[in-house]
Amino acid sequence: MEKIVGILGGMGPAATVDMLQKFVDHTPATRDQEHIPILVSSIPTIPDRSASILGDGPSPLPAMQEYTQRLVQGGAKCILIACNTAHYWDKALQAQCPVPIFSMLETAAEAALNLNATQIGVLASTATIEKGLYRRELEKRGLHCIEPDPHNQKAVWESICALKAGDLPKARTLMQHQKELLFQKGAEVIILGCTEIPIILAQEAAETPHRYIDATLTLVQRAIAWYKEK
Amino acid sequence: MEKIVGILGGMGPAATVDMLQKFVDHTPATRDQEHIPILVSSIPTIPDRSASILGDGPSPLPAMQEYTQRLVQGGAKCILIACNTAHYWDKALQAQCPVPIFSMLETAAEAALNLNATQIGVLASTATIEKGLYRRELEKRGLHCIEPDPHNQKAVWESICALKAGDLPKARTLMQHQKELLFQKGAEVIILGCTEIPIILAQEAAETPHRYIDATLTLVQRAIAWYKEK
Repeated sequence: MEKIVGILGGMGPAATVDMLQKFVDHTPATRDQEHIPILVSSIPTIPDRSASILGDGPSPLPAMQEYTQRLVQGGAKCILIACNTAHYWDKALQAQCPVPIFSMLETAAEAALNLNATQIGVLASTATIEKGLYRRELEKRGLHCIEPDPHNQKAVWESICALKAGDLPKARTLMQHQKELLFQKGAEVIILGCTEIPIILAQEAAETPHRYIDATLTLVQRAIAWYKEK
Repeated sequence: MEKIVGILGGMGPAATVDMLQKFVDHTPATRDQEHIPILVSSIPTIPDRSASILGDGPSPLPAMQEYTQRLVQGGAKCILIACNTAHYWDKALQAQCPVPIFSMLETAAEAALNLNATQIGVLASTATIEKGLYRRELEKRGLHCIEPDPHNQKAVWESICALKAGDLPKARTLMQHQKELLFQKGAEVIILGCTEIPIILAQEAAETPHRYIDATLTLVQRAIAWYKEK
């Protein structure tokens, strides 16, 4: 059986590219054939996840189910969802999916636990924060979750939307202030809990890696470990 | 009918990521849903293209056919091959593929023609050079093809292999010398004719874009234009 990783992406496309780049960067390989087989669905017409959660948009679940099914038909033996917010539907997706869906919420929370920190900041979409997606996973592990207050959360979301629209400088300026506020509120480490955020704060995460958990990277590492299991 | 672009990638994975990044960068979009729907097969176990062409390896064609078929089954309405060398088999692949396969050789040669240059340098894999893949497309359009001599072509190939193995600094040093030699031989513009080379010479191509044709980018632009056709 050929092990193939399926990536349900397109939410958004830049985050999908970032996840693929992390597979390239973190797979020990000296030639093409040693890299990990991946199928990617980057079909960005999936309805907006945040708009659906926050109340006024259609559910993305049917499209997510359809594209996941195509990945499985194409040979994918596990599925990664390249979007934190979309993990709101991961159990519903798993219920109809014959192969395991690895959860980015769980891999990031596990990474926080392994750091021996207890005060964990979370930068994520407003929908992810409002639904407590990370809070639940962190508290389940006895960790304390530090989130932006509603006013500052608006700025986090504005930053994410700026990146989706291609304006990295604006995204950076907004997000740099928000991560600073979380550290001031006592966060020892911050989960970059929206797939756009590791792109926005790439420089900070590279310079002080012990202060950030790149949720995307924790999921990629989980998939690489899965691939190497016999 | 939903228009979906299929990318036959994994040859190698870094080049596939580069092509996807170019879709993100060159699609005018202000939100996720305006980006182009893409399915990607990045299954790098496809037998080595160069080893097959140069004589001692199995053909990659059966694997290329299988993964192309999976992309078409998944909904792809056109196919891009994210590897210049693999275009050696593009006609054989097209013969069994019900949707159009756009040729990177053709889009890059067209771009050279549109620049009003006549002396076109080519940096590519040794297999691409030996089979004259670019030479044929250029001469068909009345353009003169300038290639490294066999000794220097070895250094070009060494550079490409260095990137595939993750050693960008070595790849850069080798390739910078080779592009200089082609300019000295009279090239007015150089086709970056192996999907790894735009990554290796990214800085040069960004600083003096009129001196380089990024073959990957010309193919991406072709696909974006196709997507926008009614």
